[in-house]
Amino acid sequence: MDTKNIGLRGIPVADTRISNIDGERGKLIYRGYDILDLTKNSNFEEVCYLLLHDELPTKSEYEDFTSRLKETRYIPKQMQTNMSNWRKDADPMDMLQAFVAALSGYFDEEFSNKESSYDRAINLISKVPTITASWHRIRNGKKIMDPKPELTHAANFLYMLTGEVPDEEIEKIFDICLILHADHTFNASTFTARQVASTRAHMYSAASAAIGALSGELHGGANYEVMRMLLDIKTEDKVESWIKEKMDKGERIMGMGHAVYRTYDPRARVLKELSKKLSEKINLPWFDITQKIEQVTIDEMKKRKGVDIYPNVDLYSASVYYMLKIPMDLNTPIFAISRVAGWTAHIIEEKFAEAAPKPALYRPQAVYVGKYCGPQGCEYKPLDLRAETKQ
Amino acid sequence: MDTKNIGLRGIPVADTRISNIDGERGKLIYRGYDILDLTKNSNFEEVCYLLLHDELPTKSEYEDFTSRLKETRYIPKQMQTNMSNWRKDADPMDMLQAFVAALSGYFDEEFSNKESSYDRAINLISKVPTITASWHRIRNGKKIMDPKPELTHAANFLYMLTGEVPDEEIEKIFDICLILHADHTFNASTFTARQVASTRAHMYSAASAAIGALSGELHGGANYEVMRMLLDIKTEDKVESWIKEKMDKGERIMGMGHAVYRTYDPRARVLKELSKKLSEKINLPWFDITQKIEQVTIDEMKKRKGVDIYPNVDLYSASVYYMLKIPMDLNTPIFAISRVAGWTAHIIEEKFAEAAPKPALYRPQAVYVGKYCGPQGCEYKPLDLRAETKQ
Repeated sequence: MDTKNIGLRGIPVADTRISNIDGERGKLIYRGYDILDLTKNSNFEEVCYLLLHDELPTKSEYEDFTSRLKETRYIPKQMQTNMSNWRKDADPMDMLQAFVAALSGYFDEEFSNKESSYDRAINLISKVPTITASWHRIRNGKKIMDPKPELTHAANFLYMLTGEVPDEEIEKIFDICLILHADHTFNASTFTARQVASTRAHMYSAASAAIGALSGELHGGANYEVMRMLLDIKTEDKVESWIKEKMDKGERIMGMGHAVYRTYDPRARVLKELSKKLSEKINLPWFDITQKIEQVTIDEMKKRKGVDIYPNVDLYSASVYYMLKIPMDLNTPIFAISRVAGWTAHIIEEKFAEAAPKPALYRPQAVYVGKYCGPQGCEYKPLDLRAETKQ
Repeated sequence: MDTKNIGLRGIPVADTRISNIDGERGKLIYRGYDILDLTKNSNFEEVCYLLLHDELPTKSEYEDFTSRLKETRYIPKQMQTNMSNWRKDADPMDMLQAFVAALSGYFDEEFSNKESSYDRAINLISKVPTITASWHRIRNGKKIMDPKPELTHAANFLYMLTGEVPDEEIEKIFDICLILHADHTFNASTFTARQVASTRAHMYSAASAAIGALSGELHGGANYEVMRMLLDIKTEDKVESWIKEKMDKGERIMGMGHAVYRTYDPRARVLKELSKKLSEKINLPWFDITQKIEQVTIDEMKKRKGVDIYPNVDLYSASVYYMLKIPMDLNTPIFAISRVAGWTAHIIEEKFAEAAPKPALYRPQAVYVGKYCGPQGCEYKPLDLRAETKQ
């Protein structure tokens, strides 16, 4: 086939009101609001409302929404028991994909209309953190922590994960991380969610599929790779030779460069500040090392290939999560904890779009390049008449 | 956006060697072989090998493949226990999506190379029937039947489902159904599987997502709707008025018409014969009613709109499954039992394509049509300053 459609890059497939990337100017907006404004002034719960409802909540809407989020944080005891049957070394993303799909085995909200899709969205936004934290406790043989309704979404997750209520600064940093990762137009997992929803499958089904897509190393796994790089480099003075060596071998530097942004990824800008703040607070070298990686990669790319390159969202989120004491293999589940807000908004948009052109079930064209022996296909030869050794 | 890409209809996205639909001439080929040849001469196990390996097996390859399929039919006892924790009225497709994802929680084959992907494919082809049958027994409070290694894939599933070994004719009919549904190029579930695989997610993850897509009523649920229509009509003499009434209201007749075939769907042709054979064997009116539906719909469409319409795969499969005594809500899981052969082949092709142009992570373009208040987006107003009632 013609290579122009490979990966559907640049092929418009649907309208959206949910988010927009301005790759030239390095802007990301959610429902019209600049994410830099939202990270400064809003919180994750309000951003979830915004993404789902196309507008910021009034005070009473906000109170109702946050109290519903809090009420739905629990997961059924049976589900916890089921989790304890898994291999303890199972991948947390595999667990998340399975147990999000399993939510429909425990809950049977009416799901054929738009209103009940909002109920499911709240259920998902609330329960994905609980599933993640519960599994982490179970695999480490620790007691599962019940959610604390007096805590915010961000603080409650860290509490369920570690058993300790985080201080306000840590809570705020994690909240900002959740805001930054909540949506990013038609990335691979969001497009997967939309595609499953386009068949009229229900929201748990579509969200579970999206988690599957996010679990791939080309999508959600990049900040894990960045942290491995940091741990491998260890000290700032080794950065230059490490990066040059990788580049000499033609390898990519993780966390640098993006398919859409032609300038600084606005999320990287915020995460850079957070990484700096955390490194200073707890006196660790990860910010300095990361900043040096950024600088050396920019300089070397300019020198070697004459191109400008910028950090993407993963470069500084790696050290931020590490300093928040989040186990490295939970980086991608934490991406899911945030992105589920976007997925649920996109699933609702896909299923209940009111303006034309409305989305339709995605069924692209395949280009057949296989065997084709005449109009009838190849001639079938019975097993006994086939040669034992292939020609 | 321009409507031309809606649903990606007609947009080529990747090369495939797996199957081809000739919509004009009503031909479906798997790896070069006409499915009419395969239904006459082959069996589902051999078709699975063909779809996965691009060629028919030699005798020893066939024996090895079928014995591996038989060995992997069991599911872990723990998984059966987990199933028994579900709501007994949960949708079997929801259960299947969750427990296929959960396979990675029990099995940890190395999955980074092509060879181990074939192991996972065998595991999936074997276990999807066992998961489906086990759940059906559990929800009805019946003892789970262990797989019988002396039975074929088709016979073993019917045995695990009902507790009785089917007679040879029934076994053969079901085997043909499995062959007919095994692949159909880039339908919505297969494209979902390919999309998840494009992020480098593993095969269980991609197959689980595909089940999610198949569960949607626009994709896998159609033959269920056909059977509801048959049960509603009940007798042949009511067909004409029933169809006319639906058409007067502008409603679609389920099981008639297809997006790709411009002539008789070859699968419908085979299923029509099977439906006839079964109806005669057990003296039931479902074939006659279905055939009458076909005829009346063809005549009325010609008269009213001047267009030709043909049955699709769902029209006659509904009565075939019903007469095979398969509970109606298992029609779509049975679709999965067959289509998982195609999914696994496509996942391997997506991940390990050797010829250029190789597939890449699918990330299409979104067209932002939402709010956009100037270059910085909308101005954020703190909660306390927002009006309680929206303008």
